[in-house]
Amino acid sequence: MNIPYKIYLEENELPKDWYNVRADMKNKPAPLLNPGTLQPMTAEELAGVFCDDLIKQELDDTTAFIPIPEEILKFYRMYRPSPLVRAYCLEEKLQTPAKIYYKFEGNNTSGSHKLNSAIAQAYYAKKQGLKGVTTETGAGQWGTALSMACAYFGLDCRVYMVKVSYEQKPFRREVMRTYGATVTPSPSDTTEVGRKILAEHPGTTGSLGCAISEAVEAETKLDGYRYVLGSVLNQVLLHQTVIGLETKAALDKYNIKPDMIIGCAGGGSNLGGLVSPFIGEMLRGENQYQIIAVEPASCPSFTRGKFAYDFCDTGKVCPLAKMYTLGSNFIPSANHAGGLRYHGMSPILSQLYHDGLMEARSVEQTAVFEAATQFARVEGILPAPESSHAIRVAIDEALKCKETGEEKTIVFGLTGTGYFDMVAYQKFNDGVMSDYIPTDEELEQSFAGLPKVDL
Amino acid sequence: MNIPYKIYLEENELPKDWYNVRADMKNKPAPLLNPGTLQPMTAEELAGVFCDDLIKQELDDTTAFIPIPEEILKFYRMYRPSPLVRAYCLEEKLQTPAKIYYKFEGNNTSGSHKLNSAIAQAYYAKKQGLKGVTTETGAGQWGTALSMACAYFGLDCRVYMVKVSYEQKPFRREVMRTYGATVTPSPSDTTEVGRKILAEHPGTTGSLGCAISEAVEAETKLDGYRYVLGSVLNQVLLHQTVIGLETKAALDKYNIKPDMIIGCAGGGSNLGGLVSPFIGEMLRGENQYQIIAVEPASCPSFTRGKFAYDFCDTGKVCPLAKMYTLGSNFIPSANHAGGLRYHGMSPILSQLYHDGLMEARSVEQTAVFEAATQFARVEGILPAPESSHAIRVAIDEALKCKETGEEKTIVFGLTGTGYFDMVAYQKFNDGVMSDYIPTDEELEQSFAGLPKVDL
Repeated sequence: MNIPYKIYLEENELPKDWYNVRADMKNKPAPLLNPGTLQPMTAEELAGVFCDDLIKQELDDTTAFIPIPEEILKFYRMYRPSPLVRAYCLEEKLQTPAKIYYKFEGNNTSGSHKLNSAIAQAYYAKKQGLKGVTTETGAGQWGTALSMACAYFGLDCRVYMVKVSYEQKPFRREVMRTYGATVTPSPSDTTEVGRKILAEHPGTTGSLGCAISEAVEAETKLDGYRYVLGSVLNQVLLHQTVIGLETKAALDKYNIKPDMIIGCAGGGSNLGGLVSPFIGEMLRGENQYQIIAVEPASCPSFTRGKFAYDFCDTGKVCPLAKMYTLGSNFIPSANHAGGLRYHGMSPILSQLYHDGLMEARSVEQTAVFEAATQFARVEGILPAPESSHAIRVAIDEALKCKETGEEKTIVFGLTGTGYFDMVAYQKFNDGVMSDYIPTDEELEQSFAGLPKVDL
Repeated sequence: MNIPYKIYLEENELPKDWYNVRADMKNKPAPLLNPGTLQPMTAEELAGVFCDDLIKQELDDTTAFIPIPEEILKFYRMYRPSPLVRAYCLEEKLQTPAKIYYKFEGNNTSGSHKLNSAIAQAYYAKKQGLKGVTTETGAGQWGTALSMACAYFGLDCRVYMVKVSYEQKPFRREVMRTYGATVTPSPSDTTEVGRKILAEHPGTTGSLGCAISEAVEAETKLDGYRYVLGSVLNQVLLHQTVIGLETKAALDKYNIKPDMIIGCAGGGSNLGGLVSPFIGEMLRGENQYQIIAVEPASCPSFTRGKFAYDFCDTGKVCPLAKMYTLGSNFIPSANHAGGLRYHGMSPILSQLYHDGLMEARSVEQTAVFEAATQFARVEGILPAPESSHAIRVAIDEALKCKETGEEKTIVFGLTGTGYFDMVAYQKFNDGVMSDYIPTDEELEQSFAGLPKVDL
């Protein structure tokens, strides 16, 4: 069959349900723990922080399919289905017998897949009658997505943006403001935890873990607000399965069976969303795929982290999660893939990785930008630094096929565009980009801060 | 019939030919004139500046359909067809009985429709065995598009970028560099005309007319190079008809007949491309549409210009065109829609407007950004300032329908995204954006510089 450059599903082929991979997992992800008692969090305890319907989704590890409400489907139809693209031009450039496909999530103003969960979380907040939500953002993609979603539902949106990004990416901030959000650089003096961190580290440019603490504290002090998060949580992975379900439907339409599926991994939501339906088949013994998570060598939670309970934030106000982690005190180097600079990893993906259903690779950023530039020049799309981690490994695998002559089918997730990352591209273009890999000593020091949990 | 949110054509429904509206025009656009002799330019005279195949297209006013070469179709398939979107959410927000559609050209890395002609021009340059091309860019969308096209075909690309944009939009510049282009701020000391302008106006931040002069001069001094242009010329309008042909095919597929078609107009290529197939039907007496060109009140070539022969560039090295013009000495105010700040207008559109086949409106930029923000919040897409001119009038017309109860079908061209225009959005968000309308005296002074041409 003749495969088009871009496979678009019809509107009526869009998924009507999210797929909850936990329902098919024998080893369920470990429960969140109360940071005070170190005991599993109940729905009641979570209700002070999260929206009620989202808590249900967070805790539900038995329902395989959860219907997508019509209001969310309506919004999805504005920018979904996203195309599954056959990378004919890249294949030709590489002279590889491999067949390369990518699921492109960048064709919306947030510039990434983040909108898939943002609109869901905003919807449930609205449904609960809330006034608004608080959140944090690093590179700014999640904050932008949430601003868009809140503008659509008429919710107030307060974003704590990691200070270094706030200053280096004024345009991201301005997009959020255009959508009506309030953006505060973190750490700030608007919260207790922010003031404490500023007092202890006067010149700090902030971190995601710190911004999370501020956003959670801000929510608890506002009436009619809840906190929302753009990755890591089970609910976010659930919403992102729309990516994988569309990918699978598009492949099935043309009878394509992928050999490997590749995605970048920061908090894990994009990768989890992309691979869930495929891993579901593996868990049910129906099919076998090679699943590869790609992370920066500078923040290697899968490849060098520990599988342990850890704090999700610097201020230690959030629930603890059992995950692959570098320790909540780990300070990632100034890698340009801001979305991949989180110390932890999705508990679902952590469990799947622990159980051998996925593998992981780490790559250095100069090699990532080489792949990004090569991709941009032949496929047209200027990729986000985060997404380019997946491109790097996809190209590496396609080149291996060139050596062996194997005609493997490679699918990777192209999570977003790099239009707001031109400072990073400029460094690469000017040949002044550096690589950084933490030493074993640095990691050991960070692991020493892991909490002791006996369950 | 149920109209989906986004109408996508199938790959095999993509246009195979461009449509040359001149073939159906009784009053043909006036020929280009040699700036030295003021006599019509021959193909031989043009050959020093433009590629041979493009000259043929420039001069051909009789062939209605010109086949799109397979190599260009291949590239088109990477990012086309572009979606024709039903603005359900905007309609609901406006509570209008009007049906609003927009053809969205922003889903490619150049961020606009410019890529449609860039890839064609790069292809013909490559086919002719050239080493590279020179061009100018204002806001940077054309330069980005051409850089992408040249990277794809392995051509050298030298861009003269209006200095104010070069400095205010470093990220646009960096995207071009990522695609391998050389970018020089204009006026520069690399050309005679640039040095002359710098000597006469030491602090100048440049203009499109000046950058054109530099790019043309640079080309004539380089072996194996030609000059290419992103708008105004007949050939560019021809390539952009892929927009209108797709739009018409998508509408026909659902039996939709538009009442009005709206587009922003700078040099006219996007508008011309969008409306050509519809105007063709009008010229052949098959159908009737209301066609509206929208331009900034600060640069009102249609609404307040003269229909006369004029220079296309400040340095007066380019051929003269008969067009609606504000005079080649006209200095547009610092409007944020950089792509609409050209003193002239496509000769094809000028003739059609002169013959009463189109109307034109001018709008002020604060009103444009109000429309842009309103659109972004309900339809998700953050529009370019240029495109937002069309949004403004589409919303105005939809609100008129609300008053009258008419269920008009409105189609407008959404030419691109505003990700690199956040300085402008910031000014709007901060409430410090200003409007400017040239006085009659200013225009009279500018008209005084029009060349005297007797043909």
